[in-house]
Parts: sequence; C-alpha cells; structure tokens
Amino acid sequence: MNNNSKTNSLSGFYKLNRADRLERLRHFCGLDDSSIKLLSSDSPLKFELSNLFVENAIGQFSLPLGLVTNVHLNSKEYCVPFAVEESSVIAASSNAAKWIKASGGFSGMVAGNEMIGQIQLLDLVAGSMEDVRQIILNEKTRLLKIANDVHPRLTQRGGGARDIVFRPFPNAATPFAVVHVHIDTCEAMGANLVNTVCEELAPHIQALTGARIGLKILSNYATERLFKVQCKVDPKLLAERGQDNGAEVAAKICEATDFANSDPHRAATHNKGVMNGVDPVLIATGNDWRANEAGIHAYACKQGSYGSLSAWQMDEDGWLIGEIEAPMQIGTVGGITRLHPMAQKSLDILGRPSSNELAQIALSTGLASNLAALRALVTTGIQAGHMKLHAKNLALSAGALGHHIEEVASEMVRNNKVSQTEAERLVKTLNCSCLSAENGEDLPSTETPKPHSAQKNIANDGDDGHIQSQ
Amino acid sequence: MNNNSKTNSLSGFYKLNRADRLERLRHFCGLDDSSIKLLSSDSPLKFELSNLFVENAIGQFSLPLGLVTNVHLNSKEYCVPFAVEESSVIAASSNAAKWIKASGGFSGMVAGNEMIGQIQLLDLVAGSMEDVRQIILNEKTRLLKIANDVHPRLTQRGGGARDIVFRPFPNAATPFAVVHVHIDTCEAMGANLVNTVCEELAPHIQALTGARIGLKILSNYATERLFKVQCKVDPKLLAERGQDNGAEVAAKICEATDFANSDPHRAATHNKGVMNGVDPVLIATGNDWRANEAGIHAYACKQGSYGSLSAWQMDEDGWLIGEIEAPMQIGTVGGITRLHPMAQKSLDILGRPSSNELAQIALSTGLASNLAALRALVTTGIQAGHMKLHAKNLALSAGALGHHIEEVASEMVRNNKVSQTEAERLVKTLNCSCLSAENGEDLPSTETPKPHSAQKNIANDGDDGHIQSQ
Repeated sequence: MNNNSKTNSLSGFYKLNRADRLERLRHFCGLDDSSIKLLSSDSPLKFELSNLFVENAIGQFSLPLGLVTNVHLNSKEYCVPFAVEESSVIAASSNAAKWIKASGGFSGMVAGNEMIGQIQLLDLVAGSMEDVRQIILNEKTRLLKIANDVHPRLTQRGGGARDIVFRPFPNAATPFAVVHVHIDTCEAMGANLVNTVCEELAPHIQALTGARIGLKILSNYATERLFKVQCKVDPKLLAERGQDNGAEVAAKICEATDFANSDPHRAATHNKGVMNGVDPVLIATGNDWRANEAGIHAYACKQGSYGSLSAWQMDEDGWLIGEIEAPMQIGTVGGITRLHPMAQKSLDILGRPSSNELAQIALSTGLASNLAALRALVTTGIQAGHMKLHAKNLALSAGALGHHIEEVASEMVRNNKVSQTEAERLVKTLNCSCLSAENGEDLPSTETPKPHSAQKNIANDGDDGHIQSQ
Repeated sequence: MNNNSKTNSLSGFYKLNRADRLERLRHFCGLDDSSIKLLSSDSPLKFELSNLFVENAIGQFSLPLGLVTNVHLNSKEYCVPFAVEESSVIAASSNAAKWIKASGGFSGMVAGNEMIGQIQLLDLVAGSMEDVRQIILNEKTRLLKIANDVHPRLTQRGGGARDIVFRPFPNAATPFAVVHVHIDTCEAMGANLVNTVCEELAPHIQALTGARIGLKILSNYATERLFKVQCKVDPKLLAERGQDNGAEVAAKICEATDFANSDPHRAATHNKGVMNGVDPVLIATGNDWRANEAGIHAYACKQGSYGSLSAWQMDEDGWLIGEIEAPMQIGTVGGITRLHPMAQKSLDILGRPSSNELAQIALSTGLASNLAALRALVTTGIQAGHMKLHAKNLALSAGALGHHIEEVASEMVRNNKVSQTEAERLVKTLNCSCLSAENGEDLPSTETPKPHSAQKNIANDGDDGHIQSQ
C-alpha cells in the first residue's frame, strides 16, 4: 500500500512503456496479478456489464486512463487515476503536484459530511410560514427517527439523518417552503438513500402541516458536504528558467485569482481548469461527474456572482498559498463504483480511500491542475506547450505514423505554422507510409507511435512543466 | 442516412440483443461493415492512441455507450450516442424524446456563433479606461485583420474574427480591463485557435495602450456561442395511467421550474438532470465536457443567482412548452473528435452533423432528460422506477448472475426492502451459483444477464416511462 518510503518509486514514470509502468504501479500500490492483467487489457468492460449499467447499450466509449503522480495529501502519497481525453492535463497536474509536494504537500479537511434531501411544501399561505416552521421543528426528533428507520444499517455504520431545517420562500411567485433533511451517507454518494428518505418523510410532513407536497429529492448543491484543501508553494519552484526567484510569477498567479473573482468570463475558464483535475478522478472511480459539476459550479456563485473556486494569495514569507473549498458528492460503494472492474482498480491504485479521503484527493488534483494552468498563463502562455501536443495530434490526424508524428510536429512548431493543412503538406512531402485518417479506425494499429516527447518537459521537470490547457 | 421514412426503424430497440441492435443501426444510419465491426469490438481504443492522447497512460476507462432514440429535431430524426455510467438516463431521455416527437419534435436555432478570447490589460489608471477603450476601438479593423491573418484558412471557410469589445473593470481591487475578441471557429471547438489569436494580438495591444498584458486565453463562458432549443408537449402524453388528462402533471412541471428559479439547492439538481442528457453526447463525440459544464452552469447564474437552465410553461391550449438556451462549445473536428475511432462512429451515427447541429442535438437530449426527471418527480417520485434498476445493481453486486439478478431484484422491490444486506441475504437463500463480487473482475463474464426488464416500461411505453435519476 501507499507509504512514504515508496514516495519516489514513480519518478520517471512517463519514460516507461506500458508494461514497465504497470510493473512500477504493482509495487507502488501492492496490486496483484489479476489486477495487472485487467489493467493490461484493452477490453476491460464486458458488453454484458455495459448492458446492465445502461439501456439501449451497443458498446463502450473508452477514455484514456493515465496516472497523476506526486500527489502528497495529509502526509500520504498517492498516484491518482485520471480518465480524461484532453492532452496535457495529466502531465501538468503531475508537475504542479510535484511543486506542492516539494513545498510540504496538500492538507485537506472535511468541513461537512452530510447530503441534503429536499421536500417541497406547497399551497402554504405566506403568513402561515412561521406556524409551519414551528410544527416541523417541534417534530424534529420524530421525523429524524422516521428517516433513520428507513436505513437502519446506515445508523449502525455511524451515518444517518442528523438535522431537519425549514426554509420558507414567501416571496416566490407562488409561496412555498422546503424541508431539508441532512444525512450522513457514509461511504455512499447517497442519491438513492436520500431520495428514499425524502419520499418516506413526505406523507408524515403532509399530515403534520396540511401542505401539498411538491418535489422530494436530494439536492446536488451539497453545501453540507464540504471539503477544503490547501497547499503552499515555494515560489522558487515557479520561477522561469534563468529568470527571477519566482516572486513575480507567484504575484501574477494571485492577480489571476482577482481577475476570476471580478469577471465571470474569466471565472468559468479558471474553474474549468480546476475541474480538469476533478472530473477525471470521478470518472475513473465510477462517480457521477454531473452531480459534482452542478454542485461545485453552483457553489462558485454562492456570493451572488459567478467567481473563482480557488483562492491564491501570498503569505508573509512570499510563499504562494492555495485553497479550494467545494461540495463533493462521492461514493466508494454503490452505483457502478462497485460494479465497474476498472473503478475497482482505480480504488486499489488509490489505496482504498474512504469517500471523504477521495473527495480531498480529487480537490487536490483540481488545485494542482488549476495551478499548472495559471503558471503557464502568467509566464509563456498556454500555447507554448500546448501547441507541441496539438501539433502531434494534427500530424497523427494527417496520417503520420511512428517517428513521423514527432518529425511533422516538430517541423510545424519550429516554423510556427501549426495547422491541419501544414500537417497534411508535410506528411505528403515526407512521403511517409501514411494512412488516410478519414476513418478513425484506420489510425495506428501496427506501429506504436512514441509517447509525447513533450512529456519529458512536463512530467518530470519543474522548470519547463508549465503546459496546461484550460 | 437519417431520414423520416426510417423514423420508426429503431422502435423496440431495447428488446434486441447487441448484434440485432447494431444491424438496425446499420440500416438506420447507413453504416458500413467496418463501422459495425468497430462498434462490435470490446476494445475499440488501442493503447497506442490512449498513449498519444494523454500522458502517463496505463490503459483505458470504458463508459457504456448506448443510444437515445426518438430525437426529432428541426424535422430530422436522430438516434443519439450516449456515453454514460448512470442507469435510467438513456431510457428516460428516449422516452421523453418520444413524447416530444409525438407532439411535433424539437426546434433549435443558433443564437450566436462565436467563441470569446480574452486579453487582460493591467496597470491602467482607472481614469484612463475611456482613453484606452477609444484606442482599442479606433484600431478595431487593424486588430481584426491581425487576428484573421493567424488562421487564413479559417476565413476561407467562412469563419474568422468578427468583433473586438473593450470591458473595463475600474472597481476591481487593482483596476484592469479586458479586450474580448469574438471568433467564429466554424467546425472546431476552437480553444487552440482562440488562444493563438489572443497570444498574437497581445503585443499589438500592449504597443497601442502601454498596458501590461495579463492573461490571454479563451473564455469558457461562451456567451457569444449560444443555442436555443424549444419543444412542446401534448399533456395527454404526460398523464398517469388511468388518471387525469395530463393537465395537472403539466402544471406541476411548470411549478418545478419556479422552484428551481427560487432556490439554488433545487436548481443545481434540476440542471444536473439537464446535463445528464448533454454530457453523454459530448463524451461520445470526443468533446470537452468540463468546458461546457463550466460555461453552462455560469450561464445558469447570469441573473445574479443560480437558477434553472430550462423553462417550462403552458401555452393557451394547455400544452407544455419547454425551452433551453445555453452556450455550447462543440467541435466536429480537432481534439480527439477526429482521432478517437468511437467519436468518429458517434458522428456517423448522428449523420455527420455540423458543430452547430450537434450543439442543438445535445441541448435537445438535455431538455428531454430534464422533462423525464420532472415528470417522475411530480408523479410517482424518482425512486419508483429507479429502485428497480438500483435493486438489479445490488443483486449483481451481491453476486447474483443471469436470471437470478432479476429474481433477487424483484423480490426486494416487492417487499420494499432494497438494500445490499437484503440482496446478499436473498442471494444466499437462493443458493445460486454466485461469485464473490468483492473483486470487480469476477463479475459476470460467462453468463449473459438479461437487460433491465424495466426497460420495457421506460423506453417504449409512454405511460410508465417516468424513470429518471437526477
């Protein structure tokens, strides 16, 4: 299992071929042979399972699965599985995580542990709101008992319904009220559990208040299930090669937070950079990314205008301090987390974290992804690194294979002419053994293209690793 | 290719086995043999490609790929590939799309067609903002020419930079301004393209204004790339079996919109239901869901508080009118869209839509998903249908196989005791040939479990199809 003595055993991971990567991972995470076999498979999800998970299944859509390294959170070392389609996200996050690790790592905490269920009460006269509130609050103990009787095992596990809150909306077009029930769902994301409790409570609340019951369902704006992750960064690690001591870079990163907090047009992009480091962990562990995207973005406008999810500021020593607080709805059991074989392997790779731990891991990689993007933006710009990767994709798309991919890409970057047209022209000029890329399935299957050589810069070298695409 | 004469050829799709589903699809979409072969494969993404797409690749994470049927948009019939892990989303969306199709279908339009690039100007004195604005606007033509010279091919294709806008932030902690450049990126999502233009324009703007340049990058809050989709629904189709004429159901769906617009705790969940129908299309076509989630949720709080993405109201005839307007950043070329073999197949299945068409398709399925969820919530509740699917997952997780999955699930639902404990107890009682589900890879591989029998109700029967999980 993960421990600090193995901290460095994934260094240079990007240079390895697949088999060697998996071998390193086996030692790092203590995986067994069957796990390695599954991870090595190019068909890890049987159609039978797809067909059970969803309706009208015809097959599967595979996202690349890669590893973000160097994630040091609460004195524990993780390598974090990322299921994502976008180039440079994994390299950039690994790189920023390395700066943070070298500066002391992430520290995370649980600021709230409960899902919210909503039961809507309609046909209330605005004036009676206070009476209804009293009725509900007087019966709180009984209502909580009813809620807990729905899932006796949950209480045994230390979870259960914790609180009942009354929220009046007297000024709505048609006045209504909402009863919130707060439930600690333990290791489950809790959607089914919370929904069942809401439906169970509804007739009791109706009987108590005489209200007509409207919707009864969980809220994905999980403001009672809050997590906070912080980190600090030695500015020297952020310095551009041969330039200052990093103080200017750090100051500009703080300035970028102000920009995001002043302008929703910037905030959305800023936060997209955060979510680049959150969603891939959710998907890789079988969690529901739509639920978390909704809750997290709603939280970004809790102040009344849409702002930054993260905050970057300087401490008195000139170190960069990063912080993110967000609602997370994550499970390590239930849904497809338990049923999808690769979700299980992702949890193995992470050392079988609790749901609270997993939420903090995802916010840590979110913060790392955000930092990498900001550093790129305030130094050489986002395109310097990204164009190299983009050029490779264009080369591949134009039909280049094997070492020609690198050749065509480098030529385009050197000439500052990175386009599909140019890639096609170069492929023709090279007269290489290319395939038409018109049909995706004709893409490389016989030759193995080299991995992005840009990775050397990104994943392992703090000086050049400022690639990120937001 | 898709046309109306084949409108019904996917009816009963859910009943078919995989081979028959693919055969139907071949005829519906005009797919060739190699496409069917790829779709039939359980390893459609070669490791070599994963390794090119992302860094530190070790393998792939597969999401189930299913089809949402009955999507009738702008007089064209689509079946829509959904890459998603959550049960009932595909069935529910198909079902709601069917009500909408029977009521005349979706109508969609492009309300804006341009991405936004941002160039930040710092170290401006608040008083000089107006001068700087004048300088920028006086040079607009020249700046647009510089922008268009970056991508001459884009202009040839009918795209290009269209406008320059100056946005002052005199009241920020440190006053700054932002120059927006609006670019029609045609079939590309446009991130690389817009970023390159911003970086190219920056030194010119610096020279003109003397400002210090801050960030220069696209905005994912794509308020100039807006799409609108509308539909109407005959309320009779929404009626509960043997109950009213659907007028009450329709009225309650409108009431649910008011709830979402009054309470962010409801709005996040409401919008999550929309995104359940949007993201799966983005993933299946190789598009960036984080970019769209960020832009769409930011748009949900454009009024200053986080509200509903969709609006449901009644017209004078008592029909339910649904509408959604949102920014979409979608490409049909570039990124992995062109390189991922399954993304290519998804575009084939959709009949090779333009990016504008694809944006409207995704918003249509988003609206359908939203409607299905709301109808369930205002009638029998979200759990009635969902519990059946949940029970099957629990049965599978407890080790049930083949027909035992259905037996165990039905027993739990009948007794209103749906839990992991109960599933395990029943599996033991049945003494069925079960496997330990502790390790995901031990899940069914030899026996083929039946598809959800609940699908009959969901996907093909308007009366019972109120399953949706939000």
